[in-house]
Amino acid sequence: MTDKQEYVQLTLDALQQAEIRLTDKERQRIEIATFGLPDYPLSGLQLLTYVNSPRYCAKELVLFPRQTCPEHLHPPFDGTPGKQETFRCRWGEVYLFVDDSSLTQNDASGEPVCRVPEGSEAWYSCTGYVRLRPGEQYTIAPNTRHWFQAGDQGAVVSEFSSESRDELDIFTDPRVNRLA
Amino acid sequence: MTDKQEYVQLTLDALQQAEIRLTDKERQRIEIATFGLPDYPLSGLQLLTYVNSPRYCAKELVLFPRQTCPEHLHPPFDGTPGKQETFRCRWGEVYLFVDDSSLTQNDASGEPVCRVPEGSEAWYSCTGYVRLRPGEQYTIAPNTRHWFQAGDQGAVVSEFSSESRDELDIFTDPRVNRLA
Repeated sequence: MTDKQEYVQLTLDALQQAEIRLTDKERQRIEIATFGLPDYPLSGLQLLTYVNSPRYCAKELVLFPRQTCPEHLHPPFDGTPGKQETFRCRWGEVYLFVDDSSLTQNDASGEPVCRVPEGSEAWYSCTGYVRLRPGEQYTIAPNTRHWFQAGDQGAVVSEFSSESRDELDIFTDPRVNRLA
Repeated sequence: MTDKQEYVQLTLDALQQAEIRLTDKERQRIEIATFGLPDYPLSGLQLLTYVNSPRYCAKELVLFPRQTCPEHLHPPFDGTPGKQETFRCRWGEVYLFVDDSSLTQNDASGEPVCRVPEGSEAWYSCTGYVRLRPGEQYTIAPNTRHWFQAGDQGAVVSEFSSESRDELDIFTDPRVNRLA
Protein backbone atom coordinates (compact mmCIF):
# COMPACT_ATOMS: atom_id res chain seq x y z
CA MET A 1 0.00 0.00 0.00
CA THR A 2 1.42 3.38 -0.95
CA ASP A 3 1.44 6.23 1.50
CA LYS A 4 -1.36 7.89 -0.39
CA GLN A 5 -3.56 4.79 -0.27
CA GLU A 6 -2.87 4.55 3.45
CA TYR A 7 -4.04 8.11 4.06
CA VAL A 8 -7.12 7.61 1.90
CA GLN A 9 -7.96 4.54 3.99
CA LEU A 10 -7.49 6.49 7.23
CA THR A 11 -9.84 9.14 5.82
CA LEU A 12 -12.46 6.53 4.95
CA ASP A 13 -12.10 5.07 8.44
CA ALA A 14 -12.72 8.48 10.02
CA LEU A 15 -15.81 9.06 7.85
CA GLN A 16 -17.12 5.66 8.80
CA GLN A 17 -16.56 6.40 12.48
CA ALA A 18 -18.62 9.58 11.99
CA GLU A 19 -21.34 7.40 10.38
CA ILE A 20 -21.07 9.35 7.12
CA ARG A 21 -22.07 7.16 4.21
CA LEU A 22 -20.42 7.42 0.79
CA THR A 23 -20.96 5.82 -2.59
CA ASP A 24 -18.22 3.64 -4.08
CA LYS A 25 -17.49 6.37 -6.64
CA GLU A 26 -17.01 8.92 -3.87
CA ARG A 27 -14.57 6.62 -2.09
CA GLN A 28 -12.45 6.73 -5.24
CA ARG A 29 -12.16 10.50 -5.24
CA ILE A 30 -11.08 11.32 -1.68
CA GLU A 31 -8.71 14.26 -2.01
CA ILE A 32 -5.43 14.38 -0.10
CA ALA A 33 -4.22 17.98 0.27
CA THR A 34 -0.54 18.04 1.21
CA PHE A 35 -0.28 21.73 0.26
CA GLY A 36 3.16 20.91 -1.11
CA LEU A 37 4.54 21.11 2.44
CA PRO A 38 7.23 18.68 3.59
CA ASP A 39 5.52 17.73 6.84
CA TYR A 40 2.28 16.12 5.59
CA PRO A 41 0.33 14.63 7.39
CA LEU A 42 1.25 16.95 10.28
CA SER A 43 0.17 19.79 7.99
CA GLY A 44 -2.55 18.84 5.54
CA LEU A 45 -6.19 18.03 5.02
CA GLN A 46 -8.34 15.30 3.52
CA LEU A 47 -11.61 16.11 1.83
CA LEU A 48 -14.49 15.03 -0.36
CA THR A 49 -16.46 17.54 -2.42
CA TYR A 50 -20.15 16.63 -2.67
CA VAL A 51 -21.12 19.53 -4.91
CA ASN A 52 -19.40 22.70 -6.13
CA SER A 53 -21.19 25.16 -8.37
CA PRO A 54 -21.28 28.94 -8.83
CA ARG A 55 -24.30 28.92 -6.50
CA TYR A 56 -23.07 26.82 -3.53
CA CYS A 57 -20.61 24.19 -2.40
CA ALA A 58 -20.61 21.37 0.16
CA LYS A 59 -17.66 19.27 1.29
CA GLU A 60 -16.73 16.87 4.04
CA LEU A 61 -13.35 17.64 5.65
CA VAL A 62 -11.33 15.08 7.59
CA LEU A 63 -8.45 15.95 9.91
CA PHE A 64 -6.21 13.37 11.54
CA PRO A 65 -5.37 13.82 15.24
CA ARG A 66 -3.73 17.25 15.72
CA GLN A 67 -3.37 17.71 11.95
CA THR A 68 -3.25 21.37 10.88
CA CYS A 69 -4.68 23.05 7.79
CA PRO A 70 -2.32 25.96 7.09
CA GLU A 71 -3.41 29.58 7.38
CA HIS A 72 -5.10 31.07 4.31
CA LEU A 73 -7.88 33.30 3.08
CA HIS A 74 -10.38 33.24 0.22
CA PRO A 75 -10.05 36.45 -1.80
CA PRO A 76 -12.74 38.22 -3.85
CA PHE A 77 -13.13 36.97 -7.45
CA ASP A 78 -15.40 37.56 -10.43
CA GLY A 79 -17.23 40.37 -8.63
CA THR A 80 -17.97 38.21 -5.55
CA PRO A 81 -16.65 38.96 -2.02
CA GLY A 82 -14.79 35.61 -2.03
CA LYS A 83 -15.71 32.26 -0.54
CA GLN A 84 -17.73 32.37 2.66
CA GLU A 85 -17.78 29.13 4.59
CA THR A 86 -19.62 27.54 7.49
CA PHE A 87 -17.78 24.78 9.35
CA ARG A 88 -20.00 22.32 11.18
CA CYS A 89 -18.23 19.75 13.35
CA ARG A 90 -19.73 16.28 12.89
CA TRP A 91 -17.28 14.16 14.88
CA GLY A 92 -14.25 14.78 17.09
CA GLU A 93 -13.09 18.28 17.80
CA VAL A 94 -11.63 21.12 15.77
CA TYR A 95 -9.98 24.38 16.82
CA LEU A 96 -10.67 27.09 14.27
CA PHE A 97 -8.37 30.11 14.33
CA VAL A 98 -9.71 33.24 12.68
CA ASP A 99 -8.45 36.80 12.24
CA ASP A 100 -10.87 38.10 14.88
CA SER A 101 -9.37 39.60 18.05
CA SER A 102 -12.65 39.15 19.94
CA LEU A 103 -12.16 35.36 20.02
CA THR A 104 -10.55 33.44 22.87
CA GLN A 105 -6.78 33.72 22.62
CA ASN A 106 -4.66 30.63 22.07
CA ASP A 107 -2.29 31.38 24.94
CA ALA A 108 -4.54 33.28 27.37
CA SER A 109 -4.34 30.59 30.05
CA GLY A 110 -0.65 29.83 29.74
CA GLU A 111 -0.60 26.52 27.84
CA PRO A 112 -1.89 27.07 24.28
CA VAL A 113 -4.70 24.78 23.11
CA CYS A 114 -2.90 24.36 19.79
CA ARG A 115 0.67 24.61 18.58
CA VAL A 116 1.49 25.41 14.98
CA PRO A 117 3.65 22.84 13.19
CA GLU A 118 7.29 23.23 14.20
CA GLY A 119 9.29 25.36 11.82
CA SER A 120 6.19 27.04 10.39
CA GLU A 121 5.57 29.49 13.22
CA ALA A 122 6.26 32.49 10.95
CA TRP A 123 3.30 31.63 8.74
CA TYR A 124 0.55 31.65 11.35
CA SER A 125 -0.85 34.99 12.51
CA CYS A 126 -4.35 34.23 13.86
CA THR A 127 -4.31 33.56 17.61
CA GLY A 128 -8.03 33.80 18.40
CA TYR A 129 -10.03 30.60 18.14
CA VAL A 130 -13.36 28.86 18.54
CA ARG A 131 -13.51 25.20 19.51
CA LEU A 132 -16.11 23.20 17.64
CA ARG A 133 -17.48 19.95 18.99
CA PRO A 134 -20.09 17.78 17.23
CA GLY A 135 -23.16 19.86 16.35
CA GLU A 136 -21.34 23.18 16.74
CA GLN A 137 -20.64 25.44 13.78
CA TYR A 138 -18.99 28.74 12.86
CA THR A 139 -19.13 30.91 9.74
CA ILE A 140 -15.90 32.43 8.40
CA ALA A 141 -16.34 35.72 6.55
CA PRO A 142 -14.86 36.00 3.04
CA ASN A 143 -11.33 37.35 2.62
CA THR A 144 -10.50 36.57 6.29
CA ARG A 145 -7.39 34.68 7.37
CA HIS A 146 -7.97 31.39 9.18
CA TRP A 147 -6.38 28.05 9.98
CA PHE A 148 -7.54 25.02 11.90
CA GLN A 149 -6.25 22.06 13.86
CA ALA A 150 -8.03 18.91 15.02
CA GLY A 151 -8.09 17.82 18.64
CA ASP A 152 -6.46 14.65 19.92
CA GLN A 153 -8.97 12.32 18.21
CA GLY A 154 -9.11 14.06 14.85
CA ALA A 155 -12.22 15.62 13.37
CA VAL A 156 -14.84 15.31 10.66
CA VAL A 157 -16.26 18.68 9.60
CA SER A 158 -19.00 19.50 7.09
CA GLU A 159 -18.25 22.62 5.09
CA PHE A 160 -21.16 24.57 3.57
CA SER A 161 -20.04 27.50 1.43
CA SER A 162 -20.35 29.70 -1.60
CA GLU A 163 -18.46 28.56 -4.69
CA SER A 164 -15.08 27.00 -3.97
CA ARG A 165 -12.14 28.08 -6.12
CA ASP A 166 -9.22 26.44 -4.30
CA GLU A 167 -6.68 27.65 -6.85
CA LEU A 168 -7.34 31.25 -5.76
CA ASP A 169 -6.70 30.68 -2.04
CA ILE A 170 -3.96 32.85 -0.59
CA PHE A 171 -1.74 31.12 1.98
CA THR A 172 0.38 32.96 4.52
CA ASP A 173 3.19 30.45 3.97
CA PRO A 174 4.75 31.15 0.56
CA ARG A 175 5.90 27.51 0.28
CA VAL A 176 2.30 26.32 -0.04
CA ASN A 177 1.01 24.93 -3.30
CA ARG A 178 -2.68 24.27 -2.72
CA LEU A 179 -3.02 22.05 -5.73
CA ALA A 180 -0.05 19.83 -4.85
CA MET B 1 -47.13 16.05 25.35
CA THR B 2 -48.81 18.02 22.55
CA ASP B 3 -48.91 16.65 19.05
CA LYS B 4 -46.26 19.15 18.01
CA GLN B 5 -43.91 18.13 20.82
CA GLU B 6 -44.44 14.51 19.84
CA TYR B 7 -43.46 15.17 16.23
CA VAL B 8 -40.44 17.20 17.31
CA GLN B 9 -39.36 14.27 19.47
CA LEU B 10 -39.79 11.83 16.59
CA THR B 11 -37.65 14.16 14.47
CA LEU B 12 -34.92 14.26 17.11
CA ASP B 13 -35.07 10.47 17.36
CA ALA B 14 -34.58 10.14 13.59
CA LEU B 15 -31.61 12.54 13.64
CA GLN B 16 -30.07 10.59 16.49
CA GLN B 17 -30.55 7.35 14.60
CA ALA B 18 -28.67 8.96 11.70
CA GLU B 19 -25.90 9.92 14.18
CA ILE B 20 -26.40 13.61 13.41
CA ARG B 21 -25.42 15.70 16.41
CA LEU B 22 -27.20 18.93 17.35
CA THR B 23 -26.71 21.60 19.97
CA ASP B 24 -29.40 22.15 22.62
CA LYS B 25 -30.37 25.41 20.93
CA GLU B 26 -30.86 23.61 17.61
CA ARG B 27 -33.12 21.04 19.30
CA GLN B 28 -35.35 23.94 20.30
CA ARG B 29 -35.84 25.15 16.77
CA ILE B 30 -36.82 22.02 14.84
CA GLU B 31 -39.35 23.17 12.26
CA ILE B 32 -42.55 21.23 11.65
CA ALA B 33 -43.94 22.01 8.17
CA THR B 34 -47.58 20.95 7.96
CA PHE B 35 -48.06 23.05 4.80
CA GLY B 36 -51.52 23.89 6.18
CA LEU B 37 -52.76 20.55 4.85
CA PRO B 38 -55.29 18.53 6.87
CA ASP B 39 -53.39 15.24 6.62
CA TYR B 40 -50.13 16.05 8.43
CA PRO B 41 -48.04 13.97 9.15
CA LEU B 42 -48.98 11.95 6.05
CA SER B 43 -48.13 15.10 4.07
CA GLY B 44 -45.45 17.22 5.70
CA LEU B 45 -41.79 17.65 6.49
CA GLN B 46 -39.57 18.29 9.48
CA LEU B 47 -36.38 20.31 9.16
CA LEU B 48 -33.55 22.17 10.79
CA THR B 49 -31.81 25.04 9.02
CA TYR B 50 -28.10 25.18 9.82
CA VAL B 51 -27.36 28.29 7.80
CA ASN B 52 -29.29 30.38 5.28
CA SER B 53 -27.72 33.41 3.63
CA PRO B 54 -27.86 35.09 0.22
CA ARG B 55 -24.76 33.03 -0.65
CA TYR B 56 -25.76 29.50 0.38
CA CYS B 57 -28.03 27.44 2.59
CA ALA B 58 -27.78 24.10 4.40
CA LYS B 59 -30.56 22.19 6.13
CA GLU B 60 -31.26 18.75 7.52
CA LEU B 61 -34.60 17.30 6.38
CA VAL B 62 -36.40 14.53 8.23
CA LEU B 63 -39.23 12.48 6.75
CA PHE B 64 -41.27 9.98 8.71
CA PRO B 65 -41.99 6.59 7.09
CA ARG B 66 -43.80 7.18 3.77
CA GLN B 67 -44.32 10.88 4.60
CA THR B 68 -44.69 13.08 1.50
CA CYS B 69 -43.47 16.61 0.89
CA PRO B 70 -46.02 18.10 -1.54
CA GLU B 71 -45.10 19.07 -5.08
CA HIS B 72 -43.62 22.53 -5.52
CA LEU B 73 -41.00 24.58 -7.33
CA HIS B 74 -38.61 27.38 -6.43
CA PRO B 75 -39.20 30.32 -8.78
CA PRO B 76 -36.69 32.99 -9.85
CA PHE B 77 -36.37 35.97 -7.50
CA ASP B 78 -34.24 39.11 -7.16
CA GLY B 79 -32.51 38.43 -10.45
CA THR B 80 -31.52 34.85 -9.50
CA PRO B 81 -32.76 31.71 -11.32
CA GLY B 82 -34.44 30.52 -8.08
CA LYS B 83 -33.29 28.05 -5.45
CA GLN B 84 -31.15 25.19 -6.70
CA GLU B 85 -30.84 22.32 -4.26
CA THR B 86 -28.82 19.16 -3.80
CA PHE B 87 -30.45 16.40 -1.74
CA ARG B 88 -28.05 13.96 -0.11
CA CYS B 89 -29.55 10.99 1.66
CA ARG B 90 -27.90 10.37 5.03
CA TRP B 91 -30.15 7.68 6.45
CA GLY B 92 -33.13 5.62 5.27
CA GLU B 93 -34.44 6.05 1.76
CA VAL B 94 -36.14 8.83 -0.17
CA TYR B 95 -37.90 8.82 -3.55
CA LEU B 96 -37.45 12.16 -5.27
CA PHE B 97 -39.92 12.95 -8.06
CA VAL B 98 -38.80 15.61 -10.52
CA ASP B 99 -40.27 17.12 -13.67
CA ASP B 100 -37.84 15.20 -15.88
CA SER B 101 -39.28 12.62 -18.26
CA SER B 102 -35.92 10.86 -18.59
CA LEU B 103 -36.20 9.52 -15.03
CA THR B 104 -37.60 6.11 -14.09
CA GLN B 105 -41.40 6.25 -14.14
CA ASN B 106 -43.34 5.63 -10.96
CA ASP B 107 -45.65 3.06 -12.52
CA ALA B 108 -43.43 1.53 -15.21
CA SER B 109 -43.39 -1.91 -13.61
CA GLY B 110 -47.02 -2.04 -12.59
CA GLU B 111 -46.96 -1.38 -8.86
CA PRO B 112 -45.85 2.24 -8.22
CA VAL B 113 -42.96 2.73 -5.78
CA CYS B 114 -44.86 5.65 -4.22
CA ARG B 115 -48.50 6.66 -3.93
CA VAL B 116 -49.47 10.29 -3.46
CA PRO B 117 -51.57 11.00 -0.36
CA GLU B 118 -55.18 9.99 -0.91
CA GLY B 119 -57.39 12.84 -2.05
CA SER B 120 -54.43 14.89 -3.30
CA GLU B 121 -53.84 13.06 -6.57
CA ALA B 122 -54.77 16.13 -8.62
CA TRP B 123 -51.84 18.11 -7.19
CA TYR B 124 -49.02 15.79 -8.19
CA SER B 125 -47.76 15.88 -11.77
CA CYS B 126 -44.17 14.53 -11.64
CA THR B 127 -44.02 10.78 -12.22
CA GLY B 128 -40.30 10.31 -12.87
CA TYR B 129 -38.14 9.61 -9.83
CA VAL B 130 -34.72 8.85 -8.44
CA ARG B 131 -34.34 6.73 -5.33
CA LEU B 132 -31.70 7.96 -2.94
CA ARG B 133 -30.10 5.70 -0.36
CA PRO B 134 -27.45 6.79 2.17
CA GLY B 135 -24.54 8.46 0.38
CA GLU B 136 -26.53 9.10 -2.82
CA GLN B 137 -27.46 12.58 -3.95
CA TYR B 138 -29.31 14.45 -6.69
CA THR B 139 -29.40 18.12 -7.70
CA ILE B 140 -32.76 19.70 -8.56
CA ALA B 141 -32.57 22.55 -11.07
CA PRO B 142 -34.18 25.87 -10.14
CA ASN B 143 -37.81 26.53 -11.15
CA THR B 144 -38.44 22.77 -11.58
CA ARG B 145 -41.40 20.97 -10.03
CA HIS B 146 -40.59 18.21 -7.55
CA TRP B 147 -41.96 16.27 -4.60
CA PHE B 148 -40.57 13.53 -2.43
CA GLN B 149 -41.62 10.65 -0.23
CA ALA B 150 -39.64 8.62 2.29
CA GLY B 151 -39.36 4.86 2.11
CA ASP B 152 -40.79 2.53 4.75
CA GLN B 153 -38.24 3.48 7.40
CA GLY B 154 -38.32 7.25 6.87
CA ALA B 155 -35.33 9.31 5.79
CA VAL B 156 -32.80 11.90 6.87
CA VAL B 157 -31.61 14.08 3.99
CA SER B 158 -29.01 16.86 3.93
CA GLU B 159 -30.01 19.73 1.67
CA PHE B 160 -27.28 21.96 0.23
CA SER B 161 -28.62 24.88 -1.79
CA SER B 162 -28.55 28.47 -2.86
CA GLU B 163 -30.49 30.91 -0.70
CA SER B 164 -33.76 29.52 0.67
CA ARG B 165 -36.83 31.77 0.48
CA ASP B 166 -39.58 29.36 1.53
CA GLU B 167 -42.28 32.04 1.31
CA LEU B 168 -41.76 32.22 -2.47
CA ASP B 169 -42.24 28.49 -3.12
CA ILE B 170 -45.04 27.68 -5.55
CA PHE B 171 -47.06 24.57 -4.69
CA THR B 172 -49.18 22.67 -7.19
CA ASP B 173 -51.87 22.21 -4.52
CA PRO B 174 -53.58 25.59 -3.99
CA ARG B 175 -54.55 24.60 -0.43
CA VAL B 176 -50.90 24.69 0.67
CA ASN B 177 -49.67 27.37 3.02
CA ARG B 178 -45.92 26.80 3.31
CA LEU B 179 -45.58 28.94 6.39
CA ALA B 180 -48.44 27.23 8.32
